Amino acid sequence: MRQFIVLGHDAPTTPDFSLDDLAGAAGRLDALCRCVNSAFFLSHDFRSDVRLFLVMQDELTIRFEGSELRRLNPDERSTAALIRKALEAKSEAIGHMEAESTPGVFVSKRDFETILDEASRRATVVELHEDGTPVVDLEPPEDPLFVLSDHGDFTDEEADLLAEASDERVRLGPALLHGNHAMTVAHNYLDTDGYTEY
Amino acid sequence: MRQFIVLGHDAPTTPDFSLDDLAGAAGRLDALCRCVNSAFFLSHDFRSDVRLFLVMQDELTIRFEGSELRRLNPDERSTAALIRKALEAKSEAIGHMEAESTPGVFVSKRDFETILDEASRRATVVELHEDGTPVVDLEPPEDPLFVLSDHGDFTDEEADLLAEASDERVRLGPALLHGNHAMTVAHNYLDTDGYTEY
Repeated sequence: MRQFIVLGHDAPTTPDFSLDDLAGAAGRLDALCRCVNSAFFLSHDFRSDVRLFLVMQDELTIRFEGSELRRLNPDERSTAALIRKALEAKSEAIGHMEAESTPGVFVSKRDFETILDEASRRATVVELHEDGTPVVDLEPPEDPLFVLSDHGDFTDEEADLLAEASDERVRLGPALLHGNHAMTVAHNYLDTDGYTEY
Repeated sequence: MRQFIVLGHDAPTTPDFSLDDLAGAAGRLDALCRCVNSAFFLSHDFRSDVRLFLVMQDELTIRFEGSELRRLNPDERSTAALIRKALEAKSEAIGHMEAESTPGVFVSKRDFETILDEASRRATVVELHEDGTPVVDLEPPEDPLFVLSDHGDFTDEEADLLAEASDERVRLGPALLHGNHAMTVAHNYLDTDGYTEY
């Protein structure tokens, strides 16, 4: 399984935002929606063996489970509508328990540290870092977990947590990429592994 | 210079669409907006050495010129608003001449065949094809031109034009990707060329 955690530093934690202003008043929710797109969509197909966590302001987390997802479309606006539904359901999420808002979408009051701890148990944590090893020189792990940030950089605390959990430090290329683009390149790298002729 | 042509089979050719329904009544304009994003954005940076043509229903073409672009943001909605402005300016585009609607965005009444002929003159035309050579086995060309389709497949006529112009037939990986994801992978492949240590 491929897992991704994306940290939304300004992302909404309540559903009272407008779908007409995702890049503004909704705290750059557009960037997170593009990450959902990159996690799951293929041409005429879907990556069901993927799990994505969106951490909203380190207060709560929305989990997208590829094998159970329904009603997901590629565009930002409809993805934001699914996220809004998840935020509407957060009162049903008690303690660290999750509530399912639509098929395959779950909300819980868990922060980055809790999610990272849980997701990394059966995964190889890949830290994307500009001083990392070029991805082409590495054997892709079986069950990778990638941690990415939205439009903003990691906070010092997030970077420390990630560095501590990290199994591999990797660079995807010479250019610094947006989170969703990094996810697409990571998928391609994992897809291509083992295929000398594809 | 890196060039991309993206064919929008259902894309609007008039500005009378709503920004609230890009994936519906606006003919999957969301898919084209994501291609604009993939063409130009880097983390805290911008790919100015890129030219992107969006061919709208083979009737008119919108050119995004990286070195001149202003006012472009990563989200689908604001990109669609720039496209709408271009469509509003189409009456100023006479014959094959272009009209500039916002800095770096140009509209003209040119079809795919005309654009392909012009763009390919000083470029290596790379045809992305499932039977192509794996991209990792190829030396990246200096001035590549990639031709992609939106959510739909190429028509027979488009495929024939492309096959005729094609210099290389390439496959980016074993999975079939959305156009915008293919652009991100292509950029990464070109970025990485020549960098044994990055």
